Amino acid sequence: MSALAILKEKQLTLHHLQHATQYLSWDESVMMPVGGGNARANSLAKLQQIAHNLATSSEIGDLIEAAKEEASSPWDQANLRVIEQNWQRAAVIPDDLVVRMSLATSKCTQVWREKRKENDWVAVVPLLEEVVNLTKERATIISELFNVNLYEALLGGYETGITTDFVDTVFDDLASFLPDFVNEVIERQPAHLPLKGEYSDEDQKQLAEELMLSLGFNFERGRLDTSHHPFSCGERWDTRITTRFGADDFLESMYATLHETGHALYQQGLPAEHANQPVGKSLGMMVHESQSLFMEQQVCRSDGYIKFALPTVKKCLAKEDNEELWSFTNFVRNVRHVDKGKIRVQADECTYPLHVILRYRIEQAFLRGDLKVVDIPDAWNELMHEFFGLNLEGDFTDGCMQDIHWFMGAIGYFPCYTLGAITAAQLYQKYQNTFPAVEADFENGQFDQVLDWLRKNVHSQGQLTPAFERIQEVTDKPLSTAAFKRHVTGRYLDSLLS
Amino acid sequence: MSALAILKEKQLTLHHLQHATQYLSWDESVMMPVGGGNARANSLAKLQQIAHNLATSSEIGDLIEAAKEEASSPWDQANLRVIEQNWQRAAVIPDDLVVRMSLATSKCTQVWREKRKENDWVAVVPLLEEVVNLTKERATIISELFNVNLYEALLGGYETGITTDFVDTVFDDLASFLPDFVNEVIERQPAHLPLKGEYSDEDQKQLAEELMLSLGFNFERGRLDTSHHPFSCGERWDTRITTRFGADDFLESMYATLHETGHALYQQGLPAEHANQPVGKSLGMMVHESQSLFMEQQVCRSDGYIKFALPTVKKCLAKEDNEELWSFTNFVRNVRHVDKGKIRVQADECTYPLHVILRYRIEQAFLRGDLKVVDIPDAWNELMHEFFGLNLEGDFTDGCMQDIHWFMGAIGYFPCYTLGAITAAQLYQKYQNTFPAVEADFENGQFDQVLDWLRKNVHSQGQLTPAFERIQEVTDKPLSTAAFKRHVTGRYLDSLLS
Repeated sequence: MSALAILKEKQLTLHHLQHATQYLSWDESVMMPVGGGNARANSLAKLQQIAHNLATSSEIGDLIEAAKEEASSPWDQANLRVIEQNWQRAAVIPDDLVVRMSLATSKCTQVWREKRKENDWVAVVPLLEEVVNLTKERATIISELFNVNLYEALLGGYETGITTDFVDTVFDDLASFLPDFVNEVIERQPAHLPLKGEYSDEDQKQLAEELMLSLGFNFERGRLDTSHHPFSCGERWDTRITTRFGADDFLESMYATLHETGHALYQQGLPAEHANQPVGKSLGMMVHESQSLFMEQQVCRSDGYIKFALPTVKKCLAKEDNEELWSFTNFVRNVRHVDKGKIRVQADECTYPLHVILRYRIEQAFLRGDLKVVDIPDAWNELMHEFFGLNLEGDFTDGCMQDIHWFMGAIGYFPCYTLGAITAAQLYQKYQNTFPAVEADFENGQFDQVLDWLRKNVHSQGQLTPAFERIQEVTDKPLSTAAFKRHVTGRYLDSLLS
Repeated sequence: MSALAILKEKQLTLHHLQHATQYLSWDESVMMPVGGGNARANSLAKLQQIAHNLATSSEIGDLIEAAKEEASSPWDQANLRVIEQNWQRAAVIPDDLVVRMSLATSKCTQVWREKRKENDWVAVVPLLEEVVNLTKERATIISELFNVNLYEALLGGYETGITTDFVDTVFDDLASFLPDFVNEVIERQPAHLPLKGEYSDEDQKQLAEELMLSLGFNFERGRLDTSHHPFSCGERWDTRITTRFGADDFLESMYATLHETGHALYQQGLPAEHANQPVGKSLGMMVHESQSLFMEQQVCRSDGYIKFALPTVKKCLAKEDNEELWSFTNFVRNVRHVDKGKIRVQADECTYPLHVILRYRIEQAFLRGDLKVVDIPDAWNELMHEFFGLNLEGDFTDGCMQDIHWFMGAIGYFPCYTLGAITAAQLYQKYQNTFPAVEADFENGQFDQVLDWLRKNVHSQGQLTPAFERIQEVTDKPLSTAAFKRHVTGRYLDSLLS
């Protein structure tokens, strides 16, 4: 067997182990009764330890060097590039740190899930401290290896090539552009009749499934379920998304589902023939979020899409024939309502980046040691006041406990949402320039062309080229905030419905 | 570290891997979309391979010998006994046979699930042949190791200590007793108004959950779901059962749920402090089936239980106030109706053993090579005709494709159902002799005492003593058909409601 073949065989085993970890984690979030928590945490930690041992065994480095001589196809070469990257990041992490991290994050998310409901911040502090300390330990090791700062060491785990300099450039730009822009939009946006009301879970689920189908979600290779925090996971063959059905706000649930559907379409469109090797998996979370936001924001909040979807929404949900309430104009105003709210996942696309910037600043502070975990709520409230004029004192459930990320150890993840949003805008601008009739297609329920375009340019490419190169190749530009700012300005100011 | 400690550590790792395999298999049956089948099969095969390697690594034999000197507590000694048994059976099986078996059974059950609906026997034949051949290969190796016949080699994997001689003795006795007995019951049983009708899944689920709760099922450590074939799985901390809601026969679903609840109560009652070691797991499938049948047949078809359950059943399901239909007498007659039917899982407790004996004879024939897999339907129909006077020609769905067992490689399992039934009768007889007021307790919804008794005598004992010894200890008798025959005679002939 060649070195390349041996290496691929090992990656296949890793893939099978990741498969197990992934669906067991899905089960933990969606299905598992609370009593199963400890047993699940222990099993997951053991699987991760076995996978880590395999991924970092001493011969891997030599195999990679030898395989470089053998790899001739672009896919094999790219596969080797990804394998080497993963290996470099994994090999420096001691086995016991992997196990401690897995146990700490399982425990912390389980407690978070319970204590969040009770608005009990104090109860999660020691567990979150443990997660933060272990994350720092890991970040320190990686930062020394690549000679980067602690935060960048974490960023690199979510998307290859993101630097804190780039994040700072983007965030400084948006932090200076958005506050005045948001104020202007809020001042000028017309009034709307809220579409809030009582909609049953069954009706909302039917709506969700119909919309997923129309965008191209394949239910023979996927599922929709409910969970506390909407998420997507799984492989191309079995892609699972979750949503939550707000009893009084179906739009939140509907757009959460459309968001996760964007993620799922990416997974379902990965290249079949490479699906079990690293090169056949999705790029990092920046690109993944770009795919969800491409669907949720660019496609599904467009006039064309809303014209298409509204009859289905009415069929599933409208109990009374209130023409004004269910009119296109009122629906658009609901769907594009801009608001300084406290919840990130409920935020509109204009205020959303400010939620991310808030978290970015806090993460950096506690990673640097400038902010104690116990003091996160103070920093949170200060920034919520600065950005949105809100006072959240004493509200942890909808304050710093609203997101699962830190509790599950996903520190450094948040920037990917906003980098994903600017990527989505830049991709969509390119798509619209190529096919100007796009909104007419949406109105007619034609989503094949846009899905084909994403499949060709992003999904089917796996990790053949790294994220920033891919974006440049597809859009002919380096990634920047330009398309995003143009998009929100166009949608929220220039073409205001009045 | 002592040899015993090292051995226990290895068993703990195996336990964590089995945890993963178990819940991934549950997911496969209950949640997974069809497209995920291949990926799941490959992942399960890899996990089983890793577990097999670990379970049979060369130092285990020496560790067991050394640990025998160290084990002093009865639990440690029993743990070693079970570890040694498992190791002996596993160590002789080559690694690649484990993988081939895992892949073949995954594939075969996936195809069976689809093709059963289409009544397509021919499509599963080559896959089942593969499963049978691999099972023979495994059975041959074990039969040589223990110097037993092929069938007994398989039996030993389901319950330690069962011999084909014992099975033959029991089955010959029942095969001579039951046919005339069944004819007499059918002849003498009074008419009843069938409780069949349209009951919604939601109403049936509510009923199922209420009845599970009343028997002591702990929903903080378990779930109820639906699947094609009712089953139970999971550990003491997270015990999952499934049922199916027959649109036109709620009783089938209700008693399937009560059956699986019996299994689940056993799992939930296993000793917490040993739960992650082999000694803390349940005994074999004979005893497991005795626990499900103790609940389903002995407890839940008794007069006392029916008096207790009927108001709940009516509350959940009775749409119209038909006094005669929902009377105690009519309910009892429905619940104890004896019938020569074609479906094992719908069979009453009098005809059930004949369904098992039929399968036992066919399994023995195809294991010996006296019957080709492709010819199973002929043998099936011949025996169905002999036992029940039924002609099933061309009906595979409800004929030899009705059960998942052979397709998933569980050949040699069926006798456990009937051995479980006679065990349940013998245990119940002992319980009733100890607490004669038992039915009055049931009528009052008091199930604590019977659950405590099972917990003390069976559940909490784990594998501290082997099955046959345990039954003898608890009932002061070796296992026999006496209590079962007395039970069915008493319930179905002597105390016939007229």
